[in-house]
Amino acid sequence: MTAVLTLPEVDAETPWSARFAQRTHGLTSSAIRELLKLTERTDIISFAGGLPAPEVFPVAQVAEAAGRVLAEHGPAALQYSTTEGYLPLRELLVRHMGRYGITVTPDNLLITSGAQQALDLIGKLLINPGDRVLTEEPTFVGAIQAFSAYQPEFVTVPVDADGLCVDQVEQVLRSGPKFLYVLPNFQNPAGVTMSLGRRTRLVELAAHYGVPIVEDDPYGQLRYEGEHLPPLVRVDASLHGCAKGERAFRGAVLYLGTLSKTLAPGLRLGWIVGPEEVIRKLVQLKQGADLHTSTFGQMVAYEVARGGFLDRHVRVIRDVYRARRDAMLRAMEAHFPAVVRWTRPEGGLFLWVTLPEGWDSASLLQHALQEKVAFVPGSSFHPCGGGNGTLRLNFSYCTPERIEEGIARLGGVLRRRAAEG
Amino acid sequence: MTAVLTLPEVDAETPWSARFAQRTHGLTSSAIRELLKLTERTDIISFAGGLPAPEVFPVAQVAEAAGRVLAEHGPAALQYSTTEGYLPLRELLVRHMGRYGITVTPDNLLITSGAQQALDLIGKLLINPGDRVLTEEPTFVGAIQAFSAYQPEFVTVPVDADGLCVDQVEQVLRSGPKFLYVLPNFQNPAGVTMSLGRRTRLVELAAHYGVPIVEDDPYGQLRYEGEHLPPLVRVDASLHGCAKGERAFRGAVLYLGTLSKTLAPGLRLGWIVGPEEVIRKLVQLKQGADLHTSTFGQMVAYEVARGGFLDRHVRVIRDVYRARRDAMLRAMEAHFPAVVRWTRPEGGLFLWVTLPEGWDSASLLQHALQEKVAFVPGSSFHPCGGGNGTLRLNFSYCTPERIEEGIARLGGVLRRRAAEG
Repeated sequence: MTAVLTLPEVDAETPWSARFAQRTHGLTSSAIRELLKLTERTDIISFAGGLPAPEVFPVAQVAEAAGRVLAEHGPAALQYSTTEGYLPLRELLVRHMGRYGITVTPDNLLITSGAQQALDLIGKLLINPGDRVLTEEPTFVGAIQAFSAYQPEFVTVPVDADGLCVDQVEQVLRSGPKFLYVLPNFQNPAGVTMSLGRRTRLVELAAHYGVPIVEDDPYGQLRYEGEHLPPLVRVDASLHGCAKGERAFRGAVLYLGTLSKTLAPGLRLGWIVGPEEVIRKLVQLKQGADLHTSTFGQMVAYEVARGGFLDRHVRVIRDVYRARRDAMLRAMEAHFPAVVRWTRPEGGLFLWVTLPEGWDSASLLQHALQEKVAFVPGSSFHPCGGGNGTLRLNFSYCTPERIEEGIARLGGVLRRRAAEG
Repeated sequence: MTAVLTLPEVDAETPWSARFAQRTHGLTSSAIRELLKLTERTDIISFAGGLPAPEVFPVAQVAEAAGRVLAEHGPAALQYSTTEGYLPLRELLVRHMGRYGITVTPDNLLITSGAQQALDLIGKLLINPGDRVLTEEPTFVGAIQAFSAYQPEFVTVPVDADGLCVDQVEQVLRSGPKFLYVLPNFQNPAGVTMSLGRRTRLVELAAHYGVPIVEDDPYGQLRYEGEHLPPLVRVDASLHGCAKGERAFRGAVLYLGTLSKTLAPGLRLGWIVGPEEVIRKLVQLKQGADLHTSTFGQMVAYEVARGGFLDRHVRVIRDVYRARRDAMLRAMEAHFPAVVRWTRPEGGLFLWVTLPEGWDSASLLQHALQEKVAFVPGSSFHPCGGGNGTLRLNFSYCTPERIEEGIARLGGVLRRRAAEG
């Protein structure tokens, strides 16, 4: 061993540090994930995370399902399984989406380890360094993070009360983005929903310029008022003459779903719907990424969801979250100064606050934390910078009482800031 | 809608097909995964997959643990959790590895969605297109697949009965590979184990040339005879003056572990041990890749593994697999023609067969399938081509009786081939 110690000393960090810069360039630890740590402190009322209400998790149903799965299929539930996902779960999801106008077969569907993995696999399939990716502004921070690993150049188009400003999309499409990433329903973070007219126009434009659309729809079923609007994947099929009720998948849209908001995020179950050719490629990439999603988790989710439970449970969640949204909106009316504006989402988990010119939400967060209330500064959701005068509030996690108290605290912070002028 | 239909018709495949080539270049669907489908046909005796024996899965313990987790921590088990992984599980794994000489803290450990995800995250962190990656030849097909997504150039050094031919490594290290990927124990696919002398020399060489080592150790605890050898991560610490029993992590080795072979692969639970700085970067990448591994799955695994069950269970698995290895070796002696050679692994799940000059294992597989027996042709494990005269046999999945019968069938195929000359 003596001989070994005479080797030139290599600093412990050398072999790695030179290599870090490349792949993690631009990846800073997500502000949201850091703030999630605050939710562990019970004295802080956190509107920061995107956590579902744990009170509505179907704990008893999961326990019963886990017992049944292990009793009936124990060895299979603990064994390796196919990358595509557990077939009965894929069939259930296909039937479920069929009722929302998305008419596909299980061959169009890949189970992913949460919709976050869907974003990663799509980034891996489509993005080469320097490729343009078109997103809404603001957009989902997890998508920014997933795509950033593949070093794209983000280009953005703003959202307003009717969702993505589609009239500004065409000039960006001309610059040849690799794909377009949108959340049409109750967008995270802005809480806005894309109008039907804009959906149609967006699909037309994307088809005209040959740019695929990645449609992320984690909240589509969590609508608390108003009419369900067809997803882009359905609009795409309709526009190209595919009759409703038939298998009709034209294939310019990849649709992402998740059980995180309707069942339980801790199971990490999402899915991608797309043309068979694309799904096959994504299956290859998923094989290399994690081989397959937990067999046990998929079988348990299927056992919980089948027989109509998922539909019944979604109705419960809607009622709970509608009440929380309403509590937050009422409290904001009562406590926020008039100079502050916010969105009034028809569904989902979030609303978006716009501060007066010159205010900075990151510095307001420091004051808010002193008052034991938390939110996410809007800059986290802007892949090209900006958004300092905005912030996101989550209304799904806290009870109405905590929401009232937290918004009152935050209102105090905002009123003091307003008084400073 | 009429206006829309006058748009230039975009072929359903156009938006995607032009983009496929880049990221999936060189990724063909794994021969192993295709062959795994054969194991679903009960009339085929498959030595192809790498499946653990389902008979030894701790089904009752998992059922009990799932019930306890949901009764005691139901909402937390179904909620989002931290990317790093469930702390009690990380602490348990740290204690467990400590008994094998790997002395680290939970901050050195990241839970991954199977060790397959560890390979993907390491590829994402370290590989830029065209970078060299040094592997054994043959090597694990899942690593080839995970790394290929990042478009490296593979460079290989052969293994012999004492593992990687370390005397051939230095000249390749001079060419500046990004890292070195090795399976020192009961290598997949070859079944060979790197000698202590080679481990020491390899760590010295890697340190001298500043090339990090990725040490994949899925089978380390599944030793059926002979003495446990220190993992490279331990050799690395020892060589650099870190006393045994102290926290001693020098940091030129990333060590990969998994519960897939000791508990159950269907839970998809693996881990990476590395310097805190590297783990922090990998945590960022995992955040974008799947946010975190199933909370429920991690908590269930912890509940099953704690209190010494994992150690007791590993002893059971060792006894079962040792008997199957012995059954396979005995049957091969009895049924294989003398011109065929094979390795005699001291542990793990696989052994490796070398055919006479001019034989082709892929065409032999066609004959074998006619006789209802399957294996994996060796070419799957050769990232730079070759290996046509080799094949891999798994001995963990089939019972000794099925092994005897399958090897008899395969022996018939081989003897007929030998008779052809």
